[in-house]
Amino acid sequence: MGNTFGTLFRITTWGESHGGGVGVVVDGCPPLIQLSESDIQPDLDRRRPGQSSITTPRNEADKVTILSGVFEGKTLGTPISMMVPNTDARPEAYSEMAQKFRPSHADYTYFSKFGFRNWQGGGRSSARETIGRVAAGAIAKKILKERFGVEVLAYVQQVKNIEAEVDREKLELRDVEANIVRCPDSKSAKKMIRLIEAMRRKGDSVGGVIEGIARGVPPGWGAPVFDRLEADLGKAMLSLPASKGFEVGSGFAGARLTGLEHNDAFRMRGGRVRTVTNRSGGIQGGISNGETVYFRVAFKPVATVMREQETVDVRFRNTTLKGRGRHDPCVLPRAVPMVEAMSALVLVDHALRQRAQNEWPERKR
Amino acid sequence: MGNTFGTLFRITTWGESHGGGVGVVVDGCPPLIQLSESDIQPDLDRRRPGQSSITTPRNEADKVTILSGVFEGKTLGTPISMMVPNTDARPEAYSEMAQKFRPSHADYTYFSKFGFRNWQGGGRSSARETIGRVAAGAIAKKILKERFGVEVLAYVQQVKNIEAEVDREKLELRDVEANIVRCPDSKSAKKMIRLIEAMRRKGDSVGGVIEGIARGVPPGWGAPVFDRLEADLGKAMLSLPASKGFEVGSGFAGARLTGLEHNDAFRMRGGRVRTVTNRSGGIQGGISNGETVYFRVAFKPVATVMREQETVDVRFRNTTLKGRGRHDPCVLPRAVPMVEAMSALVLVDHALRQRAQNEWPERKR
Amino acid sequence: MGNTFGTLFRITTWGESHGGGVGVVVDGCPPLIQLSESDIQPDLDRRRPGQSSITTPRNEADKVTILSGVFEGKTLGTPISMMVPNTDARPEAYSEMAQKFRPSHADYTYFSKFGFRNWQGGGRSSARETIGRVAAGAIAKKILKERFGVEVLAYVQQVKNIEAEVDREKLELRDVEANIVRCPDSKSAKKMIRLIEAMRRKGDSVGGVIEGIARGVPPGWGAPVFDRLEADLGKAMLSLPASKGFEVGSGFAGARLTGLEHNDAFRMRGGRVRTVTNRSGGIQGGISNGETVYFRVAFKPVATVMREQETVDVRFRNTTLKGRGRHDPCVLPRAVPMVEAMSALVLVDHALRQRAQNEWPERKR
Amino acid sequence: MGNTFGTLFRITTWGESHGGGVGVVVDGCPPLIQLSESDIQPDLDRRRPGQSSITTPRNEADKVTILSGVFEGKTLGTPISMMVPNTDARPEAYSEMAQKFRPSHADYTYFSKFGFRNWQGGGRSSARETIGRVAAGAIAKKILKERFGVEVLAYVQQVKNIEAEVDREKLELRDVEANIVRCPDSKSAKKMIRLIEAMRRKGDSVGGVIEGIARGVPPGWGAPVFDRLEADLGKAMLSLPASKGFEVGSGFAGARLTGLEHNDAFRMRGGRVRTVTNRSGGIQGGISNGETVYFRVAFKPVATVMREQETVDVRFRNTTLKGRGRHDPCVLPRAVPMVEAMSALVLVDHALRQRAQNEWPERKR
Repeated sequence: MGNTFGTLFRITTWGESHGGGVGVVVDGCPPLIQLSESDIQPDLDRRRPGQSSITTPRNEADKVTILSGVFEGKTLGTPISMMVPNTDARPEAYSEMAQKFRPSHADYTYFSKFGFRNWQGGGRSSARETIGRVAAGAIAKKILKERFGVEVLAYVQQVKNIEAEVDREKLELRDVEANIVRCPDSKSAKKMIRLIEAMRRKGDSVGGVIEGIARGVPPGWGAPVFDRLEADLGKAMLSLPASKGFEVGSGFAGARLTGLEHNDAFRMRGGRVRTVTNRSGGIQGGISNGETVYFRVAFKPVATVMREQETVDVRFRNTTLKGRGRHDPCVLPRAVPMVEAMSALVLVDHALRQRAQNEWPERKR
Repeated sequence: MGNTFGTLFRITTWGESHGGGVGVVVDGCPPLIQLSESDIQPDLDRRRPGQSSITTPRNEADKVTILSGVFEGKTLGTPISMMVPNTDARPEAYSEMAQKFRPSHADYTYFSKFGFRNWQGGGRSSARETIGRVAAGAIAKKILKERFGVEVLAYVQQVKNIEAEVDREKLELRDVEANIVRCPDSKSAKKMIRLIEAMRRKGDSVGGVIEGIARGVPPGWGAPVFDRLEADLGKAMLSLPASKGFEVGSGFAGARLTGLEHNDAFRMRGGRVRTVTNRSGGIQGGISNGETVYFRVAFKPVATVMREQETVDVRFRNTTLKGRGRHDPCVLPRAVPMVEAMSALVLVDHALRQRAQNEWPERKR
Repeated sequence: MGNTFGTLFRITTWGESHGGGVGVVVDGCPPLIQLSESDIQPDLDRRRPGQSSITTPRNEADKVTILSGVFEGKTLGTPISMMVPNTDARPEAYSEMAQKFRPSHADYTYFSKFGFRNWQGGGRSSARETIGRVAAGAIAKKILKERFGVEVLAYVQQVKNIEAEVDREKLELRDVEANIVRCPDSKSAKKMIRLIEAMRRKGDSVGGVIEGIARGVPPGWGAPVFDRLEADLGKAMLSLPASKGFEVGSGFAGARLTGLEHNDAFRMRGGRVRTVTNRSGGIQGGISNGETVYFRVAFKPVATVMREQETVDVRFRNTTLKGRGRHDPCVLPRAVPMVEAMSALVLVDHALRQRAQNEWPERKR
Repeated sequence: MGNTFGTLFRITTWGESHGGGVGVVVDGCPPLIQLSESDIQPDLDRRRPGQSSITTPRNEADKVTILSGVFEGKTLGTPISMMVPNTDARPEAYSEMAQKFRPSHADYTYFSKFGFRNWQGGGRSSARETIGRVAAGAIAKKILKERFGVEVLAYVQQVKNIEAEVDREKLELRDVEANIVRCPDSKSAKKMIRLIEAMRRKGDSVGGVIEGIARGVPPGWGAPVFDRLEADLGKAMLSLPASKGFEVGSGFAGARLTGLEHNDAFRMRGGRVRTVTNRSGGIQGGISNGETVYFRVAFKPVATVMREQETVDVRFRNTTLKGRGRHDPCVLPRAVPMVEAMSALVLVDHALRQRAQNEWPERKR
């Protein structure tokens, strides 16, 4: 339990970092959507290890296979099963981990929860699990674009103390992909890359912030009171490995403003109801208002560092542990497609829910 | 859809701010728990309007009735239905709202979603809806305390720029209740109260931050990969009216640290595995690790201000609107029991899930 | 848990036979449907005790109140809470039941499950619980009729060995309501009424079969593989008190035919694909095929009989018990609106699901 | 949507009859259960085509691979993904089906629902989909046996008009497996085999009835009001391909008895509360009572017959079609493990739910 996400567009992921592979089943995908592996692979390539000098050198092609749900190049409306085999796993690199809990990792908590754990790499807690999410998210993004005209993007907005300035209304995917850190502000990007490289040399790691954006969301998506759009986006983001915070629109900074400073005035523009400012982040009362949806996700620094740290072993004795193996000094560049995927999954789910309940020919405004 | 929360301990809330009343059905409550209205009413009193000089003068007793699920003073294991009637509704105060969308409220988005809305004061988007959550949360808190030894608390940590300093390991409910702003740092509390009163006089409003705490959570609660404990807490908090952000443990500040600075070393203490620091916020890999769980929730300033603002009417014409009616200049003091309720609901749900799947007599550590 | 039914059109019922009342929350009802208590009450009147000489003399008006979700006579799209108070409960009639388990009732199993039970007349296992279902079902029937042109009916097809002959394509509600046993075959109805009256005089009871019908269901409703239309209908019917069996189309009799005898040939008729026979009961592969959906539900004889029976007391000693109180000698006439309600709930849920996933303007056949 | 079953022990199946393969993800399996492919394969062998002279000659080994969730021979508590490749698919055998709807198959309804279908041999509606269910069911049966002492069995009770007599309290798996028709009454079994062989020679097919049994179920499983044990069993069985009816305990025959004839008297026996008769089928008020749970499932005759039948083509013109390809003349022998699997899935789910909500050390009886 806990490995399924979504109400109408529902994904179930499976797989450990070491074992046969990882995958996902997508249930609820509409039929008659053109789909092949070539729609999925690009996002997996953006997520895969070994893609650049600032990611882990673990080198896996992460080649996806669609096993069901597609016929003659189109979705059938039946479950889409996708799988990526594990190819470059080196369990021997983790032998010390069989005996010790890595600090700020999930080793101890998985052991506590289940009484047992796969000590070969993070097992189920490995970021490798997100492959299924990214594969499913690629389908969600395609549906959002083709059926609803919605574009989902994300980029690295902050690494440690380096913050980028980006115009979220003009951002394009090619700007994000213009450099290996996935920060469209090229000046900040350079600083970020230098910082990450320096951290790697020191055996240390860094965290940062990713901003997610959805443009073209029509008014009406989101289902109060519990399934508010920001609540579902927040859950989606906080379910990503290493995420520690989520804010929508003005977020924590908005808590420092007064109502008069914060409110988004309504004005008619282009025949539509628009807001003059967008501190609401495109969501009011848990429902999209037609403005650009945006939010920020905080990621902690990677827990694996190449330095000795105090910890405890599986027999509950104090000990020390020094990180080994191949790890990212900063997860953010690879987390960008994860943020996109999760936000696309939330949005397409609410799009379908809105169609089911509220979009009737009888309805007149 | 969207009005049910939880998997095994599941609540469904109903009701608009104006109409017969508001209520909740709790499904999945264990049997044989001593329960009466006197267990519920205190938290509703902490939530109710008119409780102090810094809350709305709308005066409702918010007296709860348990309609089912309790027999001879004990829970039956069947659904617990609770209801609070609406008594001090003054729909006439909202007549202008029938024609205009209040800025940064849910008027326009509810209208967009459903093609129709109850314009009498917020309707379903009113904070009045949270009565059901607080009532259900009081039961959840009782179960956590009696069956699991877990204590759930919250307090106002920040109002606008005024930040309190509180020792979360020593905090008691009486400290929170010691003043009307529910900030246990009495010096900061005084400043906050003065600020809120000044804002009210100006017809303006303020936001802030509430910190939530759960002490005594055993290792093992939380269900990766999607139902991580912080993901479910985040969704719960972001489903509260006016919330804009959530962070657990080090949160956004943690994104500015390096791995060596951020990691929580493990050490044996008192025969248990403990962490030396608690930047993880009591959760690692989505599962509680036995340390105190803590998180922060950002609330925007109240959208209703007593000043003229630009907006649009229901015929899509530009107009202006000045707030009227009885409103809080700051929601935070009344939101404290809401944060407690939602976190208790998440925790008790995961407590039951952990019992179901993982706590077997056969299990040896 | 277990008190919520449906995916998109979702109901949660609450209440015991003795206590404040019984009720239901309907979540997922589309907005802008004309609705008032007068749409609900007629079905509750068909379900209520004391309605005729062959039902229990327990006399309750079962007057429903809509507490939320409706504004200016139309649904808001928010949860609809409905309640019926308990007025004619006589707990003293059940005092012996506090000490003894009634044979073939739920007394012993509720006690075993929860360790505790409301011994005042069935508690949650009382048929009184179905009031919430019937109220919600009245809304579902209205939506099916107004938005989808689907008509849902049920009638008493068999009482003990007396079987009626009814043309399900021509059946109208007035035929069902033409007599107190709700069997449109008036000759069989008279025999049934005589039999039920004779049974009551003897202090005994009888069971029987209700047939449910849905006409006008378009092809495409039902969601394989687990949420086949007959699977969801079957679950719905088998969740009714006293039901012991469910069959769709040819049912158990179909198991005695060969494939050649059983298959429904396709033919074009009136420009539509039709089947020549309808042994499939309007469902093929779990999906409606455009023919009339029909199914049969078996109800056991009422467990309460006015004769001494062997049983066990709450201290686990052998004893005897003689039925007392006011009971139906046959539940079937009052179960007709329950069957209609549950089938309407299943159908409207699948109607909304089909809209969400599969009904796109892009779709061409 | 519709491809997931269960609440706490939850399975999601995927796959078409022609394509990469079929499979299942099991979420919610407790950790530390010894598990390997050898626990799964025997039930798949009982389900597989080509196993005997009375099943389809389509010959597939149906060799299962566990891809995740198991480590060092034990379950991890994480999702268990299992897969079986499609090896003997012959899509060319189905070319005529691309143009015509097979009578009483799902061709027309899938086409109606999705606007598109995999015409290569049933696609998702093929019984091949049940491989995932049987694989997951083998795990459920293992847990029921090892953790709860519950034994789940099924057998062919009727083929067309031939009915077997079996003592359900003494039945063993070896009795079921003693002959190829899986009917433990050897005399009836011989008749059934002869009948099936005769039907195959005629190009016709037959249906029948399977009885499912669960022995050792403790009192207390089942979750009223909607998730009654018989309701969930009914849904499970009616979700199987070709099933048309379900009855528990006395079932439809019970509707012909009076209350005095039908009631199960309670008596103390062996220090436990027992019933003298078991017309309730081990379930009262939706909750198990400690007696043997039993139910019957009706299966229609196989729709594919080797004779010309009237039908309609995809351009909506009348035509005829003669069955081709390799098909079972009777599905019942291969459906026995499916019935066992589905009932085990329901029971283990309710076992976990009962643990979560009601089994507390505090509870005293």
